[in-house]
Amino acid sequence: MFSILKTEGTARRGVFTCPHGTVQTPVFMNVGTQAAIKGALSAEDLQAIGCQVELSNTYHLHLRPGDTVIRDLGGLHRFMTWDGPILTDSGGFQVFSLADLRKIKEEGVTFASHIDGHRIFMGPEQSMQIQSNLGSDIAMAFDECIENPAPYAYVKASCERTLRWLVRCKAELKRLNEAPGAVNPGQVLFGINQGGTYPDLRIWHMEQIAQLDLPGYAIGGLAVGESTQTMYEIIEAVEPYMPKEKPRYLMGVGTPSNILEGVARGVDFFDCVMPARNARHGKLFTWGGTLNLKNARYERDESPIDEQCDCPVCRRYSRAYLRHLFKAEEMLAMRLSVMHNLYFYNQLMSKIRSALDNGTFAEFRAQYTEKLGQKI
Amino acid sequence: MFSILKTEGTARRGVFTCPHGTVQTPVFMNVGTQAAIKGALSAEDLQAIGCQVELSNTYHLHLRPGDTVIRDLGGLHRFMTWDGPILTDSGGFQVFSLADLRKIKEEGVTFASHIDGHRIFMGPEQSMQIQSNLGSDIAMAFDECIENPAPYAYVKASCERTLRWLVRCKAELKRLNEAPGAVNPGQVLFGINQGGTYPDLRIWHMEQIAQLDLPGYAIGGLAVGESTQTMYEIIEAVEPYMPKEKPRYLMGVGTPSNILEGVARGVDFFDCVMPARNARHGKLFTWGGTLNLKNARYERDESPIDEQCDCPVCRRYSRAYLRHLFKAEEMLAMRLSVMHNLYFYNQLMSKIRSALDNGTFAEFRAQYTEKLGQKI
Repeated sequence: MFSILKTEGTARRGVFTCPHGTVQTPVFMNVGTQAAIKGALSAEDLQAIGCQVELSNTYHLHLRPGDTVIRDLGGLHRFMTWDGPILTDSGGFQVFSLADLRKIKEEGVTFASHIDGHRIFMGPEQSMQIQSNLGSDIAMAFDECIENPAPYAYVKASCERTLRWLVRCKAELKRLNEAPGAVNPGQVLFGINQGGTYPDLRIWHMEQIAQLDLPGYAIGGLAVGESTQTMYEIIEAVEPYMPKEKPRYLMGVGTPSNILEGVARGVDFFDCVMPARNARHGKLFTWGGTLNLKNARYERDESPIDEQCDCPVCRRYSRAYLRHLFKAEEMLAMRLSVMHNLYFYNQLMSKIRSALDNGTFAEFRAQYTEKLGQKI
Repeated sequence: MFSILKTEGTARRGVFTCPHGTVQTPVFMNVGTQAAIKGALSAEDLQAIGCQVELSNTYHLHLRPGDTVIRDLGGLHRFMTWDGPILTDSGGFQVFSLADLRKIKEEGVTFASHIDGHRIFMGPEQSMQIQSNLGSDIAMAFDECIENPAPYAYVKASCERTLRWLVRCKAELKRLNEAPGAVNPGQVLFGINQGGTYPDLRIWHMEQIAQLDLPGYAIGGLAVGESTQTMYEIIEAVEPYMPKEKPRYLMGVGTPSNILEGVARGVDFFDCVMPARNARHGKLFTWGGTLNLKNARYERDESPIDEQCDCPVCRRYSRAYLRHLFKAEEMLAMRLSVMHNLYFYNQLMSKIRSALDNGTFAEFRAQYTEKLGQKI
């Protein structure tokens, strides 16, 4: 399901195949939390901006409209009319960051919905059941995501439990895939490495989960409080223990610079809400740096967001028009800006893949970093 | 510039030509107040929903981003990348309905911006200058729009002044079109009939403005407080005095039923914010009546908004998905709903035109009214 076409140092150029298609890696997944990309992007727009993998959130869809509703409607692909690959997270991150009154036991977590406060129990089996109902191509393991830094003893106990949960996830998804009526019986499970900012715990945990021989492995629990330097160090520490022949996913990361550094450290999959969120606030990525479209200097600027960009927005609209839409609080401002920023990210990945194909990734990374610094 | 292809009773099937294209009438103009259709519709979307004429608002664009900004950027067509016909209103309606502290004199109106309270003066010359800067195809006369009912003496004095303003509008637009540097020197002026709910004032005013031999005439000051029946009576009273060979525009009207009745009474152009506003609240038009997408009954409804509709939304998305987007407060809910409702309106006009072409408008009107009543 995953083939490595080429490597350059630790960086990898690969192809991942799943029920709804083939993914060229390294890849950035475009986040559609509630089965829609924020900013009024449609499934057609996702195609237009070069999205390869859409990512939706188990916690949100379980609460609304309900995963059984989506199952009864034929699964997430049919529901949102996106027939490419979909990854669903496990709900773990949101349970630990959004929900109120959570209580963790060996079985799982009891928490209160952030929408109406009703109490919900979610453990490995529930997370797998929900993701099976959603019918994503890639299901993520149910884990505890701890904010950094956290006490060693707590992180140790937590990642031991997350390991036990992973064993249960694997068994449950197997059962669900083999049961009649599965929306997407070819759904695969990615395990998630935890261990906070402690290299020894990270490595121990990675060694343990590698033994489960899952179709892919993620590094979770980063970009949640630690410094960028620490994040890179943890990736470097754990990477040698990740199975070489399996895809690797760095969850919730990050800036273009973070992604380049992640690729250089052997990561294949990325996702982050930041480019879309920045776009909704008028902060746009360009190949010459970032710009804030609300700035008065763009009032009469007829040029596109980025002269070097051939996205559907840059081919048609001016900075002046986009600035006006932001000032006038027209929703179209957000839609066009999100389209541009996600296109930029998808294009960044395409350039990274080309560089890996040509054996020039080191050069590409150095040029990008020299030109734009590590700030973005 | 306007040819009548066919008539059926008082109803007319025509073609109107203006600098940015040919308009098949009767037509519904799609409202993009601030140079964008509310609900994140792009210029591409406008094409996809069969829009013939886009309508923007002088008052809003004068305040933000400023009509001189738009002029310097090549006019409204280039600014919003819509190369079809555009009509701009005169600002009069908004000055009298949105702005604070307005003070009317013979010269024009002084008022406070609803955005930042700064004082602005607008009279016929200013309105023409702004619309000339915007470069629309059709400029509307600067008039006073009075809420109904209003005292006879006030309405009489007001429509006498509106007549004097129209003479000034005509002279000023001629001057601006002939001056070097006009964004769109082929811009034409439509006069606006006023007179409240008083047939004698309406007729007197219409007779006066008809003598100015303008390229088109609107009926203004309706759907602003009077009953639907009164509105129809006023149209019937004034219609015989409107030049037969000029297009007629019923401003700010209305429901599908209002439009059918307007066409039956000899109207060629319509506009209304209602279909887009209803859409943003989940109220959708179908050929079987209206539906509210937020209703729980659509939770698992896989059918499109309207089985009989071939709009880009009905061809792809289910009621269940749209309902979910509304409940989850995703912007995409609004965009898809606005697209559907405006398509429905544009399609209604297309059906009306076909019926007129075939001499079956009376039948079409009767069938529609019998099936759906006059409520929608």
